Amino acid sequence: MTAAFDTLDSFRTILAAQTVVDSDAIAGANQRNGQLTKPPGALGRLEDLAIWYAGWRGNPKPTLEHPQVVIFAGNHGVCAQGVSAFPAEVTAQMVANFEHGGAAINQLSKTFGAKMTVYAMALDTPTADFTTAPAMTEAEVVTALQTGWNAVDPESDLLVAGEMGIGNTTAAAALACALLGGNAADWTGRGTGVDDAGLARKTEAVAKALMLHDTSDPLEALRCVGGRELAGIVGAIAAARTHRIPVILDGFICTSAAAVLFKACDGALDHTVAGHLSAEGAHRRLLKELGKEPLLNFGLRLGEGSGAALAIGILQAAVACHSGMATFAEAGVSDG
Amino acid sequence: MTAAFDTLDSFRTILAAQTVVDSDAIAGANQRNGQLTKPPGALGRLEDLAIWYAGWRGNPKPTLEHPQVVIFAGNHGVCAQGVSAFPAEVTAQMVANFEHGGAAINQLSKTFGAKMTVYAMALDTPTADFTTAPAMTEAEVVTALQTGWNAVDPESDLLVAGEMGIGNTTAAAALACALLGGNAADWTGRGTGVDDAGLARKTEAVAKALMLHDTSDPLEALRCVGGRELAGIVGAIAAARTHRIPVILDGFICTSAAAVLFKACDGALDHTVAGHLSAEGAHRRLLKELGKEPLLNFGLRLGEGSGAALAIGILQAAVACHSGMATFAEAGVSDG
Repeated sequence: MTAAFDTLDSFRTILAAQTVVDSDAIAGANQRNGQLTKPPGALGRLEDLAIWYAGWRGNPKPTLEHPQVVIFAGNHGVCAQGVSAFPAEVTAQMVANFEHGGAAINQLSKTFGAKMTVYAMALDTPTADFTTAPAMTEAEVVTALQTGWNAVDPESDLLVAGEMGIGNTTAAAALACALLGGNAADWTGRGTGVDDAGLARKTEAVAKALMLHDTSDPLEALRCVGGRELAGIVGAIAAARTHRIPVILDGFICTSAAAVLFKACDGALDHTVAGHLSAEGAHRRLLKELGKEPLLNFGLRLGEGSGAALAIGILQAAVACHSGMATFAEAGVSDG
Repeated sequence: MTAAFDTLDSFRTILAAQTVVDSDAIAGANQRNGQLTKPPGALGRLEDLAIWYAGWRGNPKPTLEHPQVVIFAGNHGVCAQGVSAFPAEVTAQMVANFEHGGAAINQLSKTFGAKMTVYAMALDTPTADFTTAPAMTEAEVVTALQTGWNAVDPESDLLVAGEMGIGNTTAAAALACALLGGNAADWTGRGTGVDDAGLARKTEAVAKALMLHDTSDPLEALRCVGGRELAGIVGAIAAARTHRIPVILDGFICTSAAAVLFKACDGALDHTVAGHLSAEGAHRRLLKELGKEPLLNFGLRLGEGSGAALAIGILQAAVACHSGMATFAEAGVSDG
């Protein structure tokens, strides 16, 4: 597949011309919802989800049969600062685990019938340590955005974009802080489980990065303090929009990546819903900044797209009710 | 199938001899959970759910492949008091809708691969109006308990017990109030959507019932102010326990029925989890009394078992991760 862009500027141009929601499909879905055999509003947020989904699919009575899970993996130079409880080689080990079907995301994808693909992004070439240099060159970040863009199957009808990368909660914290302001400590948490000293090193690394780089432009922030898997997620969420594929956001890292689009272009996350509230502390604040109410809250903090994948079933259920239920007239039920 | 009991007293005897959780399976599941390829605790509440499920199934590495949804429908004499926004004939109309596959619960059952069966319980013979007489005779409530008991397929591995019955939020409110105390107004809500005058009539009906009947015994409370579909749920939850089948509780009505068991026998709901928090106002209080934290919160207030069915996917996901993931040793992943 030919890349749709080859510089950050041409990616910006694509974002500026983004697909809009289908208001006719929204109207049709609303009308249908009012005729289904249930008291008005009795399916609560499931009704809103189905109508939102219908609008982005451009179909007042949509189906949801081909969910896709894409996972991007990257390595991080900032690991040199001692920011993770796990060694960097775990990234490649977990990619192998994904490929052999042994990870949580494999089980979740299978449970909800999602096709899952994994992209190991130059694992032998970690990003530069962003406490001393930009994490990526423009060519590197563009390649990562392209990988994400091209990973989206236009025939799928729901996207989950997950990640794996030892050290990437540090990158995500730096990115969120660069995009949304506040202090390094506001955005830095324990990730896979660092101790107090590790948390202090993470916070210090984030603070250093923000002093070093000019991150006033969202895509420049992604280049300077992000990572390849974060850029992959950005590319995938943007590509999904052009294909009218709704997206479920995962936890803190995925949502930090999504925040790049949020800051780059008005309404660029309107085709996304927050799958869950992660136990990573700053995720709540991040979702609040993005105006997203999470669907689930089970204290997950695994990444891999796991929290978003868990929410696939909720969307499947919402769409199944909306498109499969009988109307009062069809069922011969008195409507009160 | 022969009924396991034929009086309320013989049902009480069964409850007193209830099945206990398998502590070896719990220990084995805990050990396995600690070896899976994820940071400790990173799957949050999914880990607790999987271990709980393992304990009740008596298997440290269980599967969840045969969920069952049973729906009980009944009619209520208290409808004469003008307590519902819908006419009583809707109960039978909705049973037909269930049988033809047109209701929300049909779509939800299909989405999560659950077998669904519906029991229309003497719809032409509503319970007595409990503002003036006991809702059921002992023979009637025992028959309803037996229907619920026999509805559970011993080969299933998860149970959702739902209901349909115009007027049954009034019965559920009276039952909850009888079992758990407080005032009629504390437990009475808008159900399918009554207006202020309807709500006042509901509250008055509940208050009258509680003055009229001696409801100090939980099963007597079920007989005097419950309904056939509520008794069906009680019987089904109790039967599931004997077959080591975990149960997902639905909303206000289902949970009111479950409260009969909660009051009748210590720990009688330990094999159950609360599927969701309903928008019916008193459900939150009811769950708190029962010590249950709901899995989902989408503002549903439909009944039919819909909120519980929506949570089937969560349990499937939890069990799939627990039993399907590789261990650190199997996957060759460094465990930090």
